[in-house]
Amino acid sequence: MMRTTRAARGTMNQSSVYTSVMKLSIMKLWERFFPTAPDLAASPIAATSPIDVQFLGENMPQSTKTAIMVIGGAEDKVHGREILHSFFGRSGSTEARIAIIPSASREPAIIGDRYLTIFGEMGAKGVEILDIRDREQCEDPLMQSYVENCTGVFMTGGDQLRLCGLLADTPLMKTVRDRAQQGDITLAGTSAGAAVMGHYMIAGGGSGESPNRALVDMTTGLGIIPEVIVDQHFHNRNRMARLMSAIAAYPDRMGIGIDEDTCALFEGDGTLQVIGKGTVTILDPGDLCYTNHTKVGATDPLSIGNLRLHILSHSDRYDFHKRMPIFPGCGIV
Amino acid sequence: MMRTTRAARGTMNQSSVYTSVMKLSIMKLWERFFPTAPDLAASPIAATSPIDVQFLGENMPQSTKTAIMVIGGAEDKVHGREILHSFFGRSGSTEARIAIIPSASREPAIIGDRYLTIFGEMGAKGVEILDIRDREQCEDPLMQSYVENCTGVFMTGGDQLRLCGLLADTPLMKTVRDRAQQGDITLAGTSAGAAVMGHYMIAGGGSGESPNRALVDMTTGLGIIPEVIVDQHFHNRNRMARLMSAIAAYPDRMGIGIDEDTCALFEGDGTLQVIGKGTVTILDPGDLCYTNHTKVGATDPLSIGNLRLHILSHSDRYDFHKRMPIFPGCGIV
Repeated sequence: MMRTTRAARGTMNQSSVYTSVMKLSIMKLWERFFPTAPDLAASPIAATSPIDVQFLGENMPQSTKTAIMVIGGAEDKVHGREILHSFFGRSGSTEARIAIIPSASREPAIIGDRYLTIFGEMGAKGVEILDIRDREQCEDPLMQSYVENCTGVFMTGGDQLRLCGLLADTPLMKTVRDRAQQGDITLAGTSAGAAVMGHYMIAGGGSGESPNRALVDMTTGLGIIPEVIVDQHFHNRNRMARLMSAIAAYPDRMGIGIDEDTCALFEGDGTLQVIGKGTVTILDPGDLCYTNHTKVGATDPLSIGNLRLHILSHSDRYDFHKRMPIFPGCGIV
Repeated sequence: MMRTTRAARGTMNQSSVYTSVMKLSIMKLWERFFPTAPDLAASPIAATSPIDVQFLGENMPQSTKTAIMVIGGAEDKVHGREILHSFFGRSGSTEARIAIIPSASREPAIIGDRYLTIFGEMGAKGVEILDIRDREQCEDPLMQSYVENCTGVFMTGGDQLRLCGLLADTPLMKTVRDRAQQGDITLAGTSAGAAVMGHYMIAGGGSGESPNRALVDMTTGLGIIPEVIVDQHFHNRNRMARLMSAIAAYPDRMGIGIDEDTCALFEGDGTLQVIGKGTVTILDPGDLCYTNHTKVGATDPLSIGNLRLHILSHSDRYDFHKRMPIFPGCGIV
C-alpha cells in the first residue's frame, strides 16, 4: 500500500533531482568513513567487506548535499523541526520526493501520516508512505520504482527487530542502502530507524547495572553504515553501559550514542555533524588495550581498557579519517 | 557520644599497632597518586597544593598494608562481606582498633551499631562509634585520642553534605586525614562516605539527560584524595553523565565512578585495586582537547573531546604513576 501527498502524485517516474550531481571519485565505504583506521582493521574481528560507493562533490552547496541522518528519537515535530527540516533540505527541498518507511511501528498508518503531513507542509514535491507489513511487498514494482527515483527515505521509530525482519535482504532495502551509500539519496532513521544503521544492531538491553554481556542484546542490522553500532535515546535512557558492553563485544566497530532530538549527520566526506538539542557520544575503541569479554560469564562485570570518549553537541563534528572530534567553538575547523 | 564493643574498652590510649611500620620515604601526596602527571599539572586549573606524607614500606605483607578504601555503597554486610573484611584486614585484623563515623546518616545510632556489630563479629580488638552530631564534638579530647591511636576509620553512608558540614576543617578530621595520607591508618568511606574523598565533591545531581552543567552539583569535600572526583552507586544509578559533567568542570581531576558493593582500594604505592561485584570507572581527562564548559548555559549540552575511559572489575588495578590500567587477566602485571 502506498499513500501519497497531492504533490507526490504523478512523480513516480521522474528522474532523480540529483542526476546532475558531479561524482568526483569512487572509494570504498570503509575508506569513506574509516579511511585511515589501522587499529580497527587490525582488530581481532575482521572488518566488514568493503563496498564500492560514490560520494558527492565538495562543490555542492552544503544544504543540498545528501547525507545519512541518524536521529536519536523524539525529534521535534512541532516547533522548529530543525532535524526534520534538515532532512527535507538534504532531500532536495521543494524538489524532494520522499519515501516514508513506517514499518518499525505497530501503528504504521498513524506515524506514517504524521511524517507525510510534516514533509508535505514543508513543501516536498512528493511524499509516499511505503507501508510495508509483509516482506513480499518489498518486491512490489511500484515501490521499487519509487525508491529508485526518490530523493530521500525516512525510517520511523518503533521496534528495530520488526523493521529488520520486514526489510533485511529485500530488493527494496538493497536499493535504498545502495543509493544512500552512493550519495544518491538522503536516508534518515529515527529511534528504531537509527538503531538499524550498523551491521551489528542493539536489539534491546538494560541500564542501571555495571557493564556486562547480558546488558545488551545484539543482532544484525541493515548495514547501511556497517562500521558503527548505534544506540539512541542515549543519555535520556541512560544507555552508556549497554553501548560500552556492545563495543566490548565488537571492538572493531565505533559506538555512536545519540540523544533524543539530536542527529548524527554522516556527510559523504567522512565526517559526522551534530544537529539538535542533545549530544552525540562517540566511543572509539581504536586504542583498546584489553577486554575480558570473551572470558567471563554473561552477567559478570566487564573490564574494558582504553576507550576514547567524545561528547559532541550542536555543530560539533567528528572526522572519521583522522578519528578526531572537531569543535567549531575551539577555533579548530 | 562514643559507643564501644567490649573488646574496645580500655584500648583508648594504646599506641598504634603500626608504630613499628618502617617508613621508607617522604613524598608529596600529589606524587603519591599522580607522580608523573604533566597533563594534569599543566591543565588550566591549578593543582592542589602538595601535602607532605609518608607511605608504608613495600615489605609489609599485602593483607596488613593500610589503604584508602572508596566504596560505592550497598556493600555486602551479610554474606561474604568481602569489602568489609578487607577493611578489617587492612586495619589490623584482630589487632584492629576501628572508629566508625556514622555522621552522614540521619540514623547514626542504627547504622553505627550495624557496623560495630560486623567488625566486632570479625574479631576487631576495639570498635568505637564516633557519633558526631555537632561540630563541637570534633574537639572532644576522648574522640581525638581515639582517632590518634586507632588503626582504621570507617565513614558510613547518608548525606555527604551533612558529613562535610559536621567534619570539614575540624581537628578530628585533620587527624583522620593526615593519618590516612601518611599510611598510618586504613580509612574507608562508603556511599556518602566515599563521595567526600576528593577536594571537589559531587553533592547531588541527576541522570537521564545529556551531560550539562546543571546535571551535577559540586561543592568542596574532605580532600583526603584531592586529585579525584568520586561518584558512587555509579552504574546502578546511571551516573556517567553527571561524572562527565563534573570532570568537564574540573579537568585537572580524575573521575572515579564506583558501583555498589565495589571498592576502589587506593594503595600507598600509587595504585588502585578493585574489589567487589561491580566495576570502577575511570574518566581520565589527561588528553582532554576541548570542552565548552565555560562558554555555555547551565542546561546546554556539553562538548567534551578526548576523555580516556577505563572500566575495571574485580582484581583489575590502575597505576596512577603511569596513568594506565593493569589487567591481571591479560598477563600484564
